[in-house]
Amino acid sequence: MHEPIITVLGGDGIGPEIMAATRQIIQAAQQVTQVNYHFVPMAFGGCSIDQFGEPLTDALLAQVKRSDAVLLAAVGGPKWDHYDVRPEAGLLGLRAAMQVYANLRPTKITAAAVKRSPLKAEIAQNTNFMIVRELTSGIYFGKPRHYAATQAVDTMAYARNEISRIITYAFQLAQQRDRHVTVVDKANVLATSKLWRDVAEEIHPQYPEITLDFEYVDAAAMKIVKSPQQFDVIVTSNLFGDILSDEAAAITGSIGTIPSESISENGPNLYEPIHGSAPDIAGQNIADPIGMINSAVLMLQHTFNDQATANVIERAMVAVLQQDQPVDLGGQLSTTAFTQRICTQIQQNS
Amino acid sequence: MHEPIITVLGGDGIGPEIMAATRQIIQAAQQVTQVNYHFVPMAFGGCSIDQFGEPLTDALLAQVKRSDAVLLAAVGGPKWDHYDVRPEAGLLGLRAAMQVYANLRPTKITAAAVKRSPLKAEIAQNTNFMIVRELTSGIYFGKPRHYAATQAVDTMAYARNEISRIITYAFQLAQQRDRHVTVVDKANVLATSKLWRDVAEEIHPQYPEITLDFEYVDAAAMKIVKSPQQFDVIVTSNLFGDILSDEAAAITGSIGTIPSESISENGPNLYEPIHGSAPDIAGQNIADPIGMINSAVLMLQHTFNDQATANVIERAMVAVLQQDQPVDLGGQLSTTAFTQRICTQIQQNS
Ligand SMILES: CC(C)[C@H](C(=O)O)[C@@H](O)C(=O)O
Ligand SMILES: CC(C)[C@H](C(=O)O)[C@@H](O)C(=O)O
Repeated sequence: MHEPIITVLGGDGIGPEIMAATRQIIQAAQQVTQVNYHFVPMAFGGCSIDQFGEPLTDALLAQVKRSDAVLLAAVGGPKWDHYDVRPEAGLLGLRAAMQVYANLRPTKITAAAVKRSPLKAEIAQNTNFMIVRELTSGIYFGKPRHYAATQAVDTMAYARNEISRIITYAFQLAQQRDRHVTVVDKANVLATSKLWRDVAEEIHPQYPEITLDFEYVDAAAMKIVKSPQQFDVIVTSNLFGDILSDEAAAITGSIGTIPSESISENGPNLYEPIHGSAPDIAGQNIADPIGMINSAVLMLQHTFNDQATANVIERAMVAVLQQDQPVDLGGQLSTTAFTQRICTQIQQNS
Repeated sequence: MHEPIITVLGGDGIGPEIMAATRQIIQAAQQVTQVNYHFVPMAFGGCSIDQFGEPLTDALLAQVKRSDAVLLAAVGGPKWDHYDVRPEAGLLGLRAAMQVYANLRPTKITAAAVKRSPLKAEIAQNTNFMIVRELTSGIYFGKPRHYAATQAVDTMAYARNEISRIITYAFQLAQQRDRHVTVVDKANVLATSKLWRDVAEEIHPQYPEITLDFEYVDAAAMKIVKSPQQFDVIVTSNLFGDILSDEAAAITGSIGTIPSESISENGPNLYEPIHGSAPDIAGQNIADPIGMINSAVLMLQHTFNDQATANVIERAMVAVLQQDQPVDLGGQLSTTAFTQRICTQIQQNS
């Protein structure tokens, strides 16, 4: 087997800082477990616009094809807001090229985390659901798209097979969880949503052990705040998933710590924290790398089946967090201090 | 001047119960203030489908044109979910015919209401913002709309004048509030959102005293939960407004009490509570009519400039609520008992 290849995209804002932290930690851990990951860093997003005039180069796409996994920090920032082609276009292009059709975002509020949630404890506690967001279609990619001074148009389109693929994924995921799938749509208004409902109802008989229900997106936005424990697996379209998964992250009170995983049918998966590039705090050595580290842990587990290295990292991080925390969680630790502590802890544990 | 004409649409589910309550209360109040409102009840939504085969009849549209205001409870229910034309289509048709382009939904958490909020007190307190939702365009109405077994399509379209009309409304509203407008969009992805930003920036110089900022819809969904006090006036598209205003209602913990007002450029306004038809509790005499009553109060104030009758109702309702509450707010009062108490209180106050 070849040495596992990971394309690493630090991107913009705090991205390079948290990516450097994560690479150091993986490197410390792989010395313990004697695995060798080969990292290939590439420019992506705003920094790629600055260097090459485009957010997503052909060279990067070729490199991604040669990779076993892609690790991404975050892209974007006010600097490129008025560019014709923005960093975000690179992100959408990467998702499309990699065909990462399912984006998974966990919302879990542990007993220890209840105090950080903006929700009252009795509402927050025991929340544990996963949003499965469709990532390569819908209004993000639909044509025609059109901008003129007098009118603008976006198109939300879904093909049946795009829907059935992700609904099937959600049913299978629910089999390993609490066997409850909620399809979120706006079927009382949108034609695309009606197709989502019809496809979900058609596939359901193949998974008779799964409870299937439907929520309108407005009602779901309400319930995530009022009674989040009722959800297990939420599956929804690209746009609704974007909105609801950020709302769901907010109820944890720990946006900086949440990882995500985007699944490809036949290429490498994409792992990234759910937070953005936070240009306002970039370069200050206060960014929280936990979401990025957790994304790397997911990658080790799901792409490389390397539970050993993942464990080494998780164990060390838990130990460090018992003593102090990154600044955004109310602690004293700078990005580099936190990283250094974890690396030292890894060496001590070994 | 002619006797003021109010078209009343009880609709479906709990709608007829809360509308009956509200009419009784207005009638009790107008005896005190010696005003005469003329009510014209009409079938609308599911009950109109049952009676006439369509949710919105020409007779209703003609009646609306003759009205000074329209008071609507709620429409829809599982009974009509698989009909070709559903009650919701009637609602969209009514909004379009009335040209009610701006839907206003207040989110206010008073000191007394903090304990009902699912948010921790320190986050909920002092929340007071208004969502101005565009109501007659966007993906709710865009063409082409298309449903087939293999693919479905919806279209989000906005014309410049549709955007400038509602942005202007939001700036003017903010002048009477805290002079802060937040445009919520997804300008990093959508062409229509880019037009929203451009139009808002163009109009802003006419309102130099107003602070204007922009939020992506996913970030806004986060901030409504994390730090809702930061908002004053949020203005946004039809779909984003639908989602965010329900999320905003959820943080008050009192969805049953929130009214809304939809503004027409040159016809009657439409007043309705933000909650739905709640078919699960229909006919049980436990529906909370407060959102409906508050909508009627808004109507008296804004359409009829009748502060006297509005005051009589509000004063009586506050007095009753100090003693007991409707069931959904944790009290003992059935719909009819609550209504009766308010009517009695009105008579006693006079
Ligand atoms: C940056 C933006 C284009 C992106 C999206 O909307 O998908 C982000 O919000 C996300 O959720 O990953
Ligand atoms: C019933 C439905 C069509 C409606 C909407 O989406 O506008 C409702 O959710 C609302 O907000 O008034």
